[in-house]
Amino acid sequence: METKNVKAFGTDAPDASLKQMNIERRSVTPKDIEIEILYCGVCHSDLHTARNDWGFTVYPAVPGHEIVGKVTQVGSGVTKLKVGDFAAVGCLVDSCRTCDSCKQDLEQYCLNGFTGTYNGEDKHLGGMTFGGYSEKVVVDEHFVLKVPSNLDLAATAPLLCAGITTWSPLRHWKVGKGSKVAVVGLGGLGHMAIKLAKGLGAEVTLFSRTPDKTKDALDLGADAVVISTDDNQMNSVKGTFDLIIDTVPYVHDVNPYVGTLSVNGTLVLVGYLGGLEPFLHTVPMILGRKAVAGSVIGGIAETQELLDFCGQHNIVSEIEMIKMQDINEAYERMLKSDVRYRFVIDMASLKE
Amino acid sequence: METKNVKAFGTDAPDASLKQMNIERRSVTPKDIEIEILYCGVCHSDLHTARNDWGFTVYPAVPGHEIVGKVTQVGSGVTKLKVGDFAAVGCLVDSCRTCDSCKQDLEQYCLNGFTGTYNGEDKHLGGMTFGGYSEKVVVDEHFVLKVPSNLDLAATAPLLCAGITTWSPLRHWKVGKGSKVAVVGLGGLGHMAIKLAKGLGAEVTLFSRTPDKTKDALDLGADAVVISTDDNQMNSVKGTFDLIIDTVPYVHDVNPYVGTLSVNGTLVLVGYLGGLEPFLHTVPMILGRKAVAGSVIGGIAETQELLDFCGQHNIVSEIEMIKMQDINEAYERMLKSDVRYRFVIDMASLKE
Repeated sequence: METKNVKAFGTDAPDASLKQMNIERRSVTPKDIEIEILYCGVCHSDLHTARNDWGFTVYPAVPGHEIVGKVTQVGSGVTKLKVGDFAAVGCLVDSCRTCDSCKQDLEQYCLNGFTGTYNGEDKHLGGMTFGGYSEKVVVDEHFVLKVPSNLDLAATAPLLCAGITTWSPLRHWKVGKGSKVAVVGLGGLGHMAIKLAKGLGAEVTLFSRTPDKTKDALDLGADAVVISTDDNQMNSVKGTFDLIIDTVPYVHDVNPYVGTLSVNGTLVLVGYLGGLEPFLHTVPMILGRKAVAGSVIGGIAETQELLDFCGQHNIVSEIEMIKMQDINEAYERMLKSDVRYRFVIDMASLKE
Repeated sequence: METKNVKAFGTDAPDASLKQMNIERRSVTPKDIEIEILYCGVCHSDLHTARNDWGFTVYPAVPGHEIVGKVTQVGSGVTKLKVGDFAAVGCLVDSCRTCDSCKQDLEQYCLNGFTGTYNGEDKHLGGMTFGGYSEKVVVDEHFVLKVPSNLDLAATAPLLCAGITTWSPLRHWKVGKGSKVAVVGLGGLGHMAIKLAKGLGAEVTLFSRTPDKTKDALDLGADAVVISTDDNQMNSVKGTFDLIIDTVPYVHDVNPYVGTLSVNGTLVLVGYLGGLEPFLHTVPMILGRKAVAGSVIGGIAETQELLDFCGQHNIVSEIEMIKMQDINEAYERMLKSDVRYRFVIDMASLKE
């Protein structure tokens, strides 16, 4: 298969800094779209993959799955986009497209395993896929999204992961006007959850351990902030929420939040991978038909729905723009939650 | 308030055997129905209450909330039943009837606390309510159910708790033709879950730790039995079930069962009150949008729906009839799971 050599930024080892490197991109096949990457959001998964925190990184690794760019070439059978259009790619670049999940537009739950935008098995070139920290990417049109023309392109990039990760549960659990939604944690995911739940017409509350994020939360559209370390405040919202989106990425006690769910309410975990410690108590779940669930990113149709919704409601992420060369420093700041609320790389900097 | 003295069977202390005693029943008020109790099922909750296992029993305590009998008197405003009709009472005899849950026919989740059929606060006489181990009971007609005429009365009694406890989640999670349902544990609840799920048209699997219940499960209508201690068998049903009804009443690892849920599947706990130990793992939940939930008994309208459904499908419980005087021995046998699958007291024996 013919390939094209492009500049990228990646790493050769878990303890190495990211640096410039060159990677191969396939030439477009009939269903492929080649995109010149203009902006790429920086997700915690990028850092986890670069540093092999999950134990399955194959090196060299090129992260990045919040990709926005411009179409530079299309295959002969492509109908979705044309050269010059703006386009986006999220966390998936392939899936089996034949299983029950794929047939239901739930490619994120592909029973044969979806292909991640980076560190996934590349079905075309062999080896692993390389992500958006690069000049160009070539993706089957099914996995390429259209970008509404009114949105700021750079601030749109985080919708492709932080956005869809919170949008999918909001839609699955049917949030709308009159819904009471709470969000745990105000980071990249949490700030999108507030904006999107608000956009859908819900009443939105942020749970925060300290009052220092109160002003930001209200500015983002939250109706209320509840300090989770304050028993009185927690008691005042007992039995309140239809849906809680828990974005916290580390182990934490979810039992106090379960207590704030209404009858039939669900707490959905989107950030934490691990054991629920301390033990989840069944009594409040049983006595209120409450559920604890998980959710990961979203399907392609649902991601397009999100982008269209954001276009209609003029919703984008709050971002801090960085150069590609600043990525290692950005990772360190992310680890300290020192970003409001998402780093986005101006990929023009890769050409410098 | 006028009262009537009736015979009952109850206990004065956690470590005492149940014995005959006398209790007061109120005279019927305009909305009340007086029922002569013919049969009363024996639930694990009866035993837990008699022995104060949950720490909130008030003595004397008279258990029993799977009540079937005949109407002997009705208040002036009663329209639901008339003298001579067969009637049933389950786990609830009152609720606030004004909260959001009650207004949605979810009296079991009454936000002001429902009144249990026994050991609940008696709003009429003060003190605590007394259950079905007695000659008669007086209940507001809203909480009295009609019994289909074709069903065996004694075998109908367990529908009022074991039946509705499994029916409610089957209905809430929309089980029907084509659904794949699994049941964990084959006791009073589990055997009803199999019959009811099968009646709704689902494909039903029993999880069992040993093969000794296989024949019974198949006889009850299960399509398959999976031995949960056999890794090969567990792997063969990975990602299969839309709903798992977990009836196990003691602490156990639910993680292996979560692995057998399909995408969007739910495991609902109906038997175990406590912490989920070992820790519930979020990874399979997140990667398959799976949920762990709880559910308790059911509402009054839903209980009537169950009784009507059982009438149409000729579904009743598998029972072993006992005399009232055998209750202490029955409790001991229940603790050893030595009953297939529910004891029912022939209340005529109380007159001996």
